[in-house]
Amino acid sequence: MSGPLSAAFHHAHTIRQILKKPPSDTILQVNGWVKSLRLQKRVGFAMISDGTCAQSLQVVFPDPKLPQRLTNGASVCISGKLVSSPGASQDTELVATDLNVLGRCDPETYPIQKQALTVEYLREHAHLRARTESPGAVLRFRSNVMRTLQSFFESHDFCYTHTPIVTSNDAEGAGETFRLAPVADSDGSASQEFFSEPAFLTVSSQLHLEAVANAVARVWTLSPCFRAERSQTSRHLAEFWMLEAEWAFVQSVYQVCDATEALLKNVLRASLLSLDAAVLWRAGDEEKRARVEVAASDVPWARMTYGEAIEVLRAHLAVHPGAFKFAPEWGKGLQSEHERWLAEQYARGPVFVTDYPTTLKPFYMRANDDGRTVACFDLLVPQIGELIGGSLREERESRLLEALHAHGLDAEAYRWYLELRKYGGAPHGGFGLGFERLISWISGIDNVRECIAFPRWAGRMLL
Amino acid sequence: MSGPLSAAFHHAHTIRQILKKPPSDTILQVNGWVKSLRLQKRVGFAMISDGTCAQSLQVVFPDPKLPQRLTNGASVCISGKLVSSPGASQDTELVATDLNVLGRCDPETYPIQKQALTVEYLREHAHLRARTESPGAVLRFRSNVMRTLQSFFESHDFCYTHTPIVTSNDAEGAGETFRLAPVADSDGSASQEFFSEPAFLTVSSQLHLEAVANAVARVWTLSPCFRAERSQTSRHLAEFWMLEAEWAFVQSVYQVCDATEALLKNVLRASLLSLDAAVLWRAGDEEKRARVEVAASDVPWARMTYGEAIEVLRAHLAVHPGAFKFAPEWGKGLQSEHERWLAEQYARGPVFVTDYPTTLKPFYMRANDDGRTVACFDLLVPQIGELIGGSLREERESRLLEALHAHGLDAEAYRWYLELRKYGGAPHGGFGLGFERLISWISGIDNVRECIAFPRWAGRMLL
Repeated sequence: MSGPLSAAFHHAHTIRQILKKPPSDTILQVNGWVKSLRLQKRVGFAMISDGTCAQSLQVVFPDPKLPQRLTNGASVCISGKLVSSPGASQDTELVATDLNVLGRCDPETYPIQKQALTVEYLREHAHLRARTESPGAVLRFRSNVMRTLQSFFESHDFCYTHTPIVTSNDAEGAGETFRLAPVADSDGSASQEFFSEPAFLTVSSQLHLEAVANAVARVWTLSPCFRAERSQTSRHLAEFWMLEAEWAFVQSVYQVCDATEALLKNVLRASLLSLDAAVLWRAGDEEKRARVEVAASDVPWARMTYGEAIEVLRAHLAVHPGAFKFAPEWGKGLQSEHERWLAEQYARGPVFVTDYPTTLKPFYMRANDDGRTVACFDLLVPQIGELIGGSLREERESRLLEALHAHGLDAEAYRWYLELRKYGGAPHGGFGLGFERLISWISGIDNVRECIAFPRWAGRMLL
Repeated sequence: MSGPLSAAFHHAHTIRQILKKPPSDTILQVNGWVKSLRLQKRVGFAMISDGTCAQSLQVVFPDPKLPQRLTNGASVCISGKLVSSPGASQDTELVATDLNVLGRCDPETYPIQKQALTVEYLREHAHLRARTESPGAVLRFRSNVMRTLQSFFESHDFCYTHTPIVTSNDAEGAGETFRLAPVADSDGSASQEFFSEPAFLTVSSQLHLEAVANAVARVWTLSPCFRAERSQTSRHLAEFWMLEAEWAFVQSVYQVCDATEALLKNVLRASLLSLDAAVLWRAGDEEKRARVEVAASDVPWARMTYGEAIEVLRAHLAVHPGAFKFAPEWGKGLQSEHERWLAEQYARGPVFVTDYPTTLKPFYMRANDDGRTVACFDLLVPQIGELIGGSLREERESRLLEALHAHGLDAEAYRWYLELRKYGGAPHGGFGLGFERLISWISGIDNVRECIAFPRWAGRMLL
């Protein structure tokens, strides 16, 4: 970018920039919020953060009268000189010559007090919680993970595609979709469907991505998705972000696994170097973090078929009666306890479980030749359970039509989807990944409600 | 990325990769769709595209029997040897030794025929239109523009933030918001608000971004937004993507203009080099494109206050009676005809109009000292009209409270927003930009319905 263009932000250095590469300016202006204060008789200290990085800048006030009326949470502009710090905990500090308080903060009523605040309390103060350490780090961390995703996909010629949020697809009438209310006529006399037909919030971008992937061969998206589920678990949100990728000319589900593993290892490795993630991992998390380190290594992740998974689960149960509440049985879904045992005890790391029975999976997955399984996978990871689902998609029109019938779905409603096959449809596959679950896994955060700025769940929507 | 990790996609080269840097493989496999065919007695030619770039790969069949039954639209895997092309229109071509048809395409019924198809026809075939030249180029172009945005914001320490889609904010009761229908109880007996209060689709992420920008000083998003507007213009969609940025410690609206101009010039310059944009500009667009080139130059964009704009409009009308349908008058909004004249005739390029009367703008804009205007801008561009709106936000709690009252809004509903000011609120500002309008401007596409993969407008929602 040419000189004049970057002038817009050059008047102000962020604290990240200052700490990374101290500017040579004789007198520097620093903007930020006061995170802590220590006033002594002959000198004052303040830690100032502007949220651009996990670290704060130490400011030294040789004149302790200057910051006398300063309080935590106030926004300030401080002028001073950058010097090497004699302290052990930072390389650089600012010796302040001038202080301008931009926004005062009453310490008596400020909801963000210095003592430790519970995650539940912070959730209830969603508009302020990014001012505290972990919630702020989460936002930067999300942004950095997105950049890693973007780089990976770009280097493999994937096109970022915006898929619709409002759709006519009711997700097979699953009853867990949000529906838009009809809109009043302009004269207010009656209400009608704005789009002339019922409109729902999307639960997945997959079908739309398939349409695009049969033209632009490699596509991905990170898109909001919605489930009107009343479950109140640490793994569910009513509004969440879903990473989905879809690409043509893939002929084996193991290639889809390869791509998924490559992408995630990229993300894991970047996250292990992240200073924000370092803030998020807590004392006591060492074992969880060590597992993430192992998952990030070059060692390939375990792979097994659903049939094999059932066998090892049954063998385990035979030796350890009572190990599971639910008996593992071919044809039945894997329970959460099974998934966690497979990842945590058996594979001791992420494990791809492939080729589930047809009856357990959606209509669009590609039928295997055995006539009873589909070319799909679930990726199970320690602590989280199912993190990703993926498959080859049925690209044979006649087989897809059979699958629609077998699932009791109206083929007419899927005519456009069938046409993708009818006219030059290519073999293709893809996967979907809940973004907040990913963040949870690679930062050690227990609840997905802490993995997004403004969480929504049944009964609760702040702001 | 280490070797084994990138194996996932190394088995297949995309056509973009092949054309950019021909691989050294002796025999190459190429996947794609047939765009055109020319069969002669002793040789056959096919143009193959996989959608990863605007260009197709020419395939030569020394044995014309091989592609005999091939048709346009079919998906294929072709093996062959890459050679320098004797033809003038490409450097490289593939001499085919083997052909595998992956998905046939019946030329009799295929909706995408060779002859030119109208944009209206293609809109009605949304699931197939990315297979044609311009709609495919639009998708890649959007993806590239996003990458440019991402780089710009990243280089200035902005954090990409996901803001909520579903919100309790009804956009000041403007009546153009979509509302979620209540959800049936689990026993189906009654319907109730899923979130315990009415929920709406967001019309702007600004207020949420302001909350974050008062903690993480520089934030941006590209987020879906919704307007239940019945207008059927070439500039409106019911679901569109909005680029919004918000940052703290900015003290003048001109700094917000500076940042906006820097960002857009970056995007403009990248777009002028884009091969996809080259596909989108059409014969007859030369003048429009020349204007974009001028806008991309180092020459600063024009700036004038609203008051100055009213004066020049009145002066023009005085000399040219009948030039405008609406008389320009201080205190009244600028009409579309005024905006276009200012950009197209007066400034002959993008023009920032700043400091509008308080009464014309939303409550959150920062009051100027004159007591009758606010520190805001609209960016007007030729052909499009208003492209961007931005402002300083009122960071003084008492002034904000006055503005809420003056706009007849319930201060209690904005308590969280007031608290952002009450507790260490920093001066801040930002802007919002309709992404499809931006795409329209910099690619010469007339209608925003062609600037997004699956457009939605009143009465129409395909797929």
